[in-house]
Amino acid sequence: MNAISIIAKKRDKKELSQDEIDYFIKEYTKGNITDYQAAALVMAIYINGMTNKEITNLTISMANSGDTIDLSDVSDNIVDKHSTGGVGDKITLILMPIIASLGVPVAKMSGRGLGFTGGTSDKLESIPGYNVNISIEEFKNNVQEIGISLITSSLNLAPADKKIYALRDTIGCTANIPLIASSIMSKKIASGANKILIDITCGNGAFMKDIKQAKELANMMIKIGILAHREVRCVITNMNEPTGHAIGNTLEVIEAIKALKGDMPEDIKEIIIALGTQMLFMAGKASDAVKATQMIEEAIQSGAAYNKFKELVAKQGGDITYLDDTEKFPKAKHIIPVYAEERGALKTIDTEKIGNISVYLGAGRIRKEDSIDHTAGIVMNQRIGNVVEVGQVLAYIHTNDESKIEGATRNLKEAFVLDPKKVAKPKTVIGLIK
Amino acid sequence: MNAISIIAKKRDKKELSQDEIDYFIKEYTKGNITDYQAAALVMAIYINGMTNKEITNLTISMANSGDTIDLSDVSDNIVDKHSTGGVGDKITLILMPIIASLGVPVAKMSGRGLGFTGGTSDKLESIPGYNVNISIEEFKNNVQEIGISLITSSLNLAPADKKIYALRDTIGCTANIPLIASSIMSKKIASGANKILIDITCGNGAFMKDIKQAKELANMMIKIGILAHREVRCVITNMNEPTGHAIGNTLEVIEAIKALKGDMPEDIKEIIIALGTQMLFMAGKASDAVKATQMIEEAIQSGAAYNKFKELVAKQGGDITYLDDTEKFPKAKHIIPVYAEERGALKTIDTEKIGNISVYLGAGRIRKEDSIDHTAGIVMNQRIGNVVEVGQVLAYIHTNDESKIEGATRNLKEAFVLDPKKVAKPKTVIGLIK
Repeated sequence: MNAISIIAKKRDKKELSQDEIDYFIKEYTKGNITDYQAAALVMAIYINGMTNKEITNLTISMANSGDTIDLSDVSDNIVDKHSTGGVGDKITLILMPIIASLGVPVAKMSGRGLGFTGGTSDKLESIPGYNVNISIEEFKNNVQEIGISLITSSLNLAPADKKIYALRDTIGCTANIPLIASSIMSKKIASGANKILIDITCGNGAFMKDIKQAKELANMMIKIGILAHREVRCVITNMNEPTGHAIGNTLEVIEAIKALKGDMPEDIKEIIIALGTQMLFMAGKASDAVKATQMIEEAIQSGAAYNKFKELVAKQGGDITYLDDTEKFPKAKHIIPVYAEERGALKTIDTEKIGNISVYLGAGRIRKEDSIDHTAGIVMNQRIGNVVEVGQVLAYIHTNDESKIEGATRNLKEAFVLDPKKVAKPKTVIGLIK
Repeated sequence: MNAISIIAKKRDKKELSQDEIDYFIKEYTKGNITDYQAAALVMAIYINGMTNKEITNLTISMANSGDTIDLSDVSDNIVDKHSTGGVGDKITLILMPIIASLGVPVAKMSGRGLGFTGGTSDKLESIPGYNVNISIEEFKNNVQEIGISLITSSLNLAPADKKIYALRDTIGCTANIPLIASSIMSKKIASGANKILIDITCGNGAFMKDIKQAKELANMMIKIGILAHREVRCVITNMNEPTGHAIGNTLEVIEAIKALKGDMPEDIKEIIIALGTQMLFMAGKASDAVKATQMIEEAIQSGAAYNKFKELVAKQGGDITYLDDTEKFPKAKHIIPVYAEERGALKTIDTEKIGNISVYLGAGRIRKEDSIDHTAGIVMNQRIGNVVEVGQVLAYIHTNDESKIEGATRNLKEAFVLDPKKVAKPKTVIGLIK
């Protein structure tokens, strides 16, 4: 067995064995197989495809390529939630405390933002004192003591996936369902989840641009789940406009805190109910949707969810006075409204563009090593279907850099398309696939 | 225009423009495009193919990626000859002096041996004093003064081809007709030929294993020739057994000298007539095959071809007393006959294996930096179709390393397959494609 014969096999559209995939991934992780050999294999996979068995074996080999976490001492039923990423997606911050308050252990590792999508770890760090970098022992202890911990991954989880992901980016092989599916699943498996709920965001602010792709990805991950003995469910949600109103780290944390206190935008509520219901089902805490919805609503109304979030923040060193009084959070120096210049129904929002403007304002990173400005971002003031009058505010720019206001304003205006005709409100939750 | 979009286009089986190919090759040569990006493109080309226009543009971009030689001041009709490589292939050493003695200017650069195939430059260096590393000025002067020069390429010819060739080897993309065709043609175009005759060796001792592949390669190179304004003709010759008897540098030079003196094995004679006739046609020196054959035979019988070779050797510093008396050449310490152990008609010879045994004995290189033993090699004593009796000599091993005799003998025996039934002699010249 050697790298060249494995590449040649996939080049000729033949099925690779488990041993071949495992050998390639192991040796690539060690550096014994070169980037150009991996690039050739990835291109051959992109063009010639892989069987479900191959994709699953690839997923498992990548999951085992570095550190793995065993959460069986915390619970034998760890339900993880993952989003394929979007703009303004603060669902984790709201959903996980709700679920934890209902007795489902939450042991979740989140990433940082890169490109036009944000990351939960960056958002949590907007809360003064909150430490996302605690040890795995502390992480497990927190879950055992208070039922929840949210951290960033300091471990070397699925390093083969990291290498292949970076490679795909440079060789035009990003948009490939089998490779996306195995990338997501490898990280989830390495981080110890045995049940996985995936929020597949879909639209012009997500990696999946249309519902057909989103469904394909969902089915692929479910098949991997079956072969890898992990229960996987997928909820497809709309990302043709940002989730909620706020985009940017502090801004999103404030929106999440308000949501946990009961002040929740309609689209966020729909997503929380849809995802929360599935998590309660998977955790065995509910078996019918009406009951599950009631449990979630009750967790919010009673303050249990908000209190769980406070407990979490306190436990990880965060200053909870900011939660009780969100006015304490620092604000950007400049908060600039962007006005509509014509009348019409809001037809489309270029969501990826909104995400990129937010990055430009300082809220995100272009390269991994970039630092971020927690207060920067955008607050949306209109949703698709709204009729907007001339002079009404479309959105607010939050920035500390005066020189960026003009460009951001111009670009932001371009991201909104108005139409003289009536426009229907889009569905927020598009479907469930399990 | 950027590397990723170019890779993605070929990934999607679209035709690349001349500008795109040229940009990619230029930037890859400079190191601005990485090996892994080139590997991804090469794999996409392998799987999705290229149009004739694309292959020609790739060829020309690679030809222009480094030094190029302009031979128009030497002659406006430089006919080059190239062999796709084989075992015992000393045709250049015999054919070029014949052609030069008939008034066709010969300005030829040759490579060194690598793997199971030999290289003309190594063979020429078996002649004490012969300098293959003269300057391009001297090279041109020699052609102008005596009508012939044979050198190695010290220039940076088609560096993009060198990089891609090395890459292909490591990613399972060697055996691909468009890539082989553009690799050969790019070097020939960079080295200044305007008419190119290709000897496509075909069989178990060549890169083209069957006639179908050989014809495909021929047609591809002719098409590149048409689009790149170079006249290309291809002769397909048999490489299911070594060419002539001798394999190894000094051994082959001695066989070539004897051939130029008129002592020529039948298969070599057939190849010389076939290739020589086409070269005389392309050079405008003959227009019918009977006449061309007579010219070639006359050049040998009159001693003109041999004298031209002596002139060449003398001009490039070689000791011509070795030519007049080939007994002067050093011999290997051990010359060991290998005997047939059964009776039968010689059915197949594993020619690649013979080439590899010759390398093992010291005649060739496994890696570029290996040194070679000029006296080492193999002399074949039987050809396919011969009826061999028990105890008859199959071949002789020439080596200076006693420890290699046993292994070489055992392997050599395995390379000959005898059959109780009568076996027909194979055709040496399989076809002409123009």
